[in-house]
Order: sequence, then C-alpha cells, then structure tokens
Amino acid sequence: MSGAVIWFTGLSGAGKTTIVKALEPVLIEAGHKVQILDGDAVRETLSKGLGFSREDRDTNIRRIGFVANLLAKHGVVTLVSAISPYRDTRREVLDQADKSLEVFVDAPFETVSSRDVKGLYKKALAGEIQHFTGVSDPYEAPTHPELHLRTDLESLEQSVDRVLEKLASLGIRVPVSA
Amino acid sequence: MSGAVIWFTGLSGAGKTTIVKALEPVLIEAGHKVQILDGDAVRETLSKGLGFSREDRDTNIRRIGFVANLLAKHGVVTLVSAISPYRDTRREVLDQADKSLEVFVDAPFETVSSRDVKGLYKKALAGEIQHFTGVSDPYEAPTHPELHLRTDLESLEQSVDRVLEKLASLGIRVPVSA
Repeated sequence: MSGAVIWFTGLSGAGKTTIVKALEPVLIEAGHKVQILDGDAVRETLSKGLGFSREDRDTNIRRIGFVANLLAKHGVVTLVSAISPYRDTRREVLDQADKSLEVFVDAPFETVSSRDVKGLYKKALAGEIQHFTGVSDPYEAPTHPELHLRTDLESLEQSVDRVLEKLASLGIRVPVSA
Repeated sequence: MSGAVIWFTGLSGAGKTTIVKALEPVLIEAGHKVQILDGDAVRETLSKGLGFSREDRDTNIRRIGFVANLLAKHGVVTLVSAISPYRDTRREVLDQADKSLEVFVDAPFETVSSRDVKGLYKKALAGEIQHFTGVSDPYEAPTHPELHLRTDLESLEQSVDRVLEKLASLGIRVPVSA
C-alpha cells in the first residue's frame, strides 16, 4: 500500500483539523494505514521546549516532516495538520517525500478570527498572546498548493471530496464514490 | 504484519549498531517493514540542539520512543540503537509500545574502550569530551532486559540468532533457520 504525506497548512481556525479528522475514517475504510500528526499535539512530544520564533517554528516543521516522511516510506498515509507559516520550510519538507500534497486550508481572516474556536484570536488581538500567526506573526500562503480549499465557500463534505479526488490522481486508492 | 520496538541499549562500542545492521536484511527478507532509529543519527533531525545532560538525554530518548511507537503501531519492526543510559526512561518508553523488547548489548568496559571504533574513548579518558557515558557520565544497565547479549563472548551471528529467537517468541515472523 502506498504511503504519502498530505500537508494541511493554514491559519488557526481555517479548518485543518476538522478536514483531517473527516478524512481519516474514509481512508482507513479504503484500506489505508493512516496517521494524523497535529502541529499542536506534537509540541508535547517531539517539540517540547520549542517556542514560536521563526527558528523554533521551522524546527518544529522539520521534525514533523521527518516523522511524516518515515511513516509515508512505510506505507502510511500521513495527514499533517499544522499552521506551518513559512513557505520555504514547507516546500523543503514536502520535497523530501516521495508522494506529497500541499493543501492550503484557507478562509478570510474575518472568518477564522470570528470562528475563534479556542478563544485565541481574541487574546491575540488584545495583545495577550505574542507571536500569533495572522495577528502578530506572518503567514506565508502557498503560491502553488496542489489544492486550495476555501472553507468559507465550500462545505466540509466538498473539501473532503476534493482531497480524495486529488489523492486518486496521485494513485492513492480512495472510495469509489469519491 | 506485526510491528514492534526492539530497543538496543549499551555503551558506545558495545556493538548495538553492528547487530542492528545485521538484523535489518534478515527481517526484511522475512517480509517485515524495518526501520532503524540510531541515537546518534536522530540528533541531527529529531533532537538537534539537545546536549548530553540527563534531561536532554531523556528528552532525546522520549522522542525516539515516540517515533518508534508510531512506526510499530503501523506494523514496522523498529530497531532502536541508542546508548540510552537511564533505566527508568528506557522502561517508560518501552512500556508505551504494544510489543517491545529491551536488548542489553553488553561487553566489559575494557573491551569497548579498547575497540574505540570512533576514537571517542581515548578523548573522553583524556578529558577532551565531557559527559561521555561510561567514563564521565553514568550508564544504568538494565536489571531485567528481555535479552542480554555479551558481545565479547559471542559472535555477531550468535547475537543475531538470539534476537531472532526472541522475536519468534513474541510472535514475530523470522526465517525458519533461526
């Protein structure tokens, strides 16, 4: 079975984790081994002690990329959900994988900041959190992502279907209905 | 196919990497997915920036353990070769794996320091390297390893055979001759 790294990048609140969690059971059902690597979650394990400077963010992304590539090499479809704000670092990491997709999970700032699921934008805009991507830290949108999802304009189901279509074009088995 | 974490601990020069490299092709031949995680090598990726204090060594071991467990969960037989000097940290990490083996790769200090493949013992004994395990830093030998290899008393082939026998007892397929 063929592994791959599917890298979901975008602002906090854009919908990365929601899409990844919806994809996981579909891909498992299609017979794949699937692993989610969540940028926030790995900060407790892989990246404990790292902060949010450019250097530390890049180190975090390179570590996630290292693990994702190892898993993909052994046939695991690895879904990375990470803000990963720096364009060059994302490309560097994705270029190391045999099969990879960069998926830009996108919605206007007004949308993601008003969703504010974790209440973080409110704090960031009030200056209570430093280095917050999109507020006080840059986000470099992909210039040529393999897929550009607009979560303010399309439904979750549509986003998932578009990812599945793209995976099929990479030769990765997906459910027939997709 | 069943994954597992096989953790080789021991002093520098005890023979961990030699055994792991001899095992890899045998296990691949038996149909396994195999990944080697080498403690020195991952310092360039997973653990860049970490030093050799107890805390940093433990962080390094926990990260290797995290990755090894992820791989094992997806069916990969993961061979870890790492000095990993602290007993409790090794057990903590191994206890997280569904299937794991602690293999103590052992030889007397006189043997490993006289092998001195990398010329490190000479420097450590001369005080040119600090925090060198077995010289200026502690090594806590396993009290109940699943396997205790004495590389000064047995041949590489014997050591490899003993690992294969142990793997078979865990229900992991090995070549018939083993």
